[in-house]
Amino acid sequence: MLNDTFLLACKGQKTDYTPIWLMRQAGRYMAEYREIRQRYDFLTLCKTPELAVEVTLQPVNILGVDAAILFSDILIPLEPVGFDLEFSDKIGPVIHNPVRCREDLKQLKRLNPNQDIDFISKTIKLLKNELKVPLIGFSGAPFTLATYIIEGGVSKNFVNTKSILYGERDLFDDIMEYLTQLVLDYLHFQIEAGVDAIQIFDTWLGVLIPADILEIISRYINYIIDNIKNKYTLPIIYFPFNCSAIFEQIDLCNCDVLGVDWRIDIARLVGFSSSKAIQGNLDPCALFGNKRYIKDKALDIISSAKDSKGHIFNLGHGILPDTPVDNVKYLVEVVHNSKNLIKGGV
Amino acid sequence: MLNDTFLLACKGQKTDYTPIWLMRQAGRYMAEYREIRQRYDFLTLCKTPELAVEVTLQPVNILGVDAAILFSDILIPLEPVGFDLEFSDKIGPVIHNPVRCREDLKQLKRLNPNQDIDFISKTIKLLKNELKVPLIGFSGAPFTLATYIIEGGVSKNFVNTKSILYGERDLFDDIMEYLTQLVLDYLHFQIEAGVDAIQIFDTWLGVLIPADILEIISRYINYIIDNIKNKYTLPIIYFPFNCSAIFEQIDLCNCDVLGVDWRIDIARLVGFSSSKAIQGNLDPCALFGNKRYIKDKALDIISSAKDSKGHIFNLGHGILPDTPVDNVKYLVEVVHNSKNLIKGGV
Repeated sequence: MLNDTFLLACKGQKTDYTPIWLMRQAGRYMAEYREIRQRYDFLTLCKTPELAVEVTLQPVNILGVDAAILFSDILIPLEPVGFDLEFSDKIGPVIHNPVRCREDLKQLKRLNPNQDIDFISKTIKLLKNELKVPLIGFSGAPFTLATYIIEGGVSKNFVNTKSILYGERDLFDDIMEYLTQLVLDYLHFQIEAGVDAIQIFDTWLGVLIPADILEIISRYINYIIDNIKNKYTLPIIYFPFNCSAIFEQIDLCNCDVLGVDWRIDIARLVGFSSSKAIQGNLDPCALFGNKRYIKDKALDIISSAKDSKGHIFNLGHGILPDTPVDNVKYLVEVVHNSKNLIKGGV
Repeated sequence: MLNDTFLLACKGQKTDYTPIWLMRQAGRYMAEYREIRQRYDFLTLCKTPELAVEVTLQPVNILGVDAAILFSDILIPLEPVGFDLEFSDKIGPVIHNPVRCREDLKQLKRLNPNQDIDFISKTIKLLKNELKVPLIGFSGAPFTLATYIIEGGVSKNFVNTKSILYGERDLFDDIMEYLTQLVLDYLHFQIEAGVDAIQIFDTWLGVLIPADILEIISRYINYIIDNIKNKYTLPIIYFPFNCSAIFEQIDLCNCDVLGVDWRIDIARLVGFSSSKAIQGNLDPCALFGNKRYIKDKALDIISSAKDSKGHIFNLGHGILPDTPVDNVKYLVEVVHNSKNLIKGGV
């Protein structure tokens, strides 16, 4: 039987305890993951269903979190549409043929998921046979993907992306429209394969000015969300990193769950948006603190979310490579027992 | 005679036009600067008064900005107190002996400005003889300096700094107290030498949670500001980068001028703080856009600041190395003529 605590919280229904999962919960901080990564490179792991299943299950079995997230990467759908993608252990993802003009954009084809990324659907189907908790599928958001395809990888100042946004707005909009279709094709494919919820990662939207952030959410993010909601009822989590400056207006976003980083007090956020469940928001570095700090902050966050429509505990960003596993296990325990710990007066 | 438009705006007094200067206005985007840098390394430039004077004057003469800022670096006072500092053109500043424990902290001596950084006072005195606009002195803020001395340079996730903040709070506070004294010694020295205003750069404070940001401002930043205000009347600009999440409570900061990055609409900020002048906040990447965009955004910002106590136009962060100089000159023109441009209906 499925433990549906996570899904109930996403829908704003009553749960017995606060559910928790952790962004990048399958990762290098865990010895079991490192052991597999010694034998296979990152892309092989993503593209081989049996391996992707194994690492997806690791944190569920070892930590007892309330949801699994498909082991993959937001850049995975970019390779088959025409990008020369490389994952360098040293500098992160590199795209050797970035998009800098209209001609570059015209070279790209539309994603054909059944043919291009069949391994994703196979992984999802295998996972659904194994899992006792819900499975989250995901995609990068159009703007975040745009930064990778324009910059050719991670960036410090996003000069190339912003040069197009501020200097060639028509080209920027065409890139965003192309990526919006890509995201939709990718998410529909995951939903058809069986995921129970989806998360849209907008890791870099917060590098823009407020007016552009709001316009991108209204125009592209809501288009994606509305399109999915027309056909399906599964919860949609939207995670715009480092965007707390626009949270007063976040109710314009049609997501069911808003994921937030540690830069905002959730109690304040609830005042801006009572219609959404909230996911977050412990600083991943808190797991390098002592246990007393971890407990105090986790309980603070749970208390600050008490008037939200629903609360899913998470970090404010992906778990970091050197995080002590023992502290992660302790965090999961504290969150699961928070009712007693808060009642008992900590 | 001194053009005091900048100083009047800092104090919230009426000015004939909106003054402008640009963070990192002396820098690699300018051919005249690159020419000197080919002959001298960065530290030599900072430590040789005649050279520091020359590059400080370049943007004043070439762009016609309304203030000069001492050519230096926030890490300059760290070398004489015991740090092994290197400026690598490739990876930025490196501190080869970072502070990780109480013993490391105990090794550091107190700054003796007259003996340790006499070149700073010489540069300021030479500049004051030449300049027809005010001269801004500056320092890094204690937290921002703490990240450099703990991480040993620039950082992505600030794991070492936050491990101490979240795990060894007493040590963190002692590091902050040491650096607060260092900042005070450094700023008093610059003020005595003749600077007309000071700016405190808090580039990395925004990586913390709101409660910690607010506590650091109340405790350390206000201590510095109050201490200076006890003796001097010059304007104090505080620039906490990427902190828009806490701006509702920014009136707790005792600065005269609040510097802000592009992540907030100044009109909204004015609602939170009517007692301070505002400095900012064009995205430095806007200077890679077309001229129409630069004009529109500059005028937007000036309009959004119309009800502020005072407004000094600036970028939301340092000017970037590849910025087209022609666009920078155009921006200065637009800002200086904004009254006519806005009246004319753009």
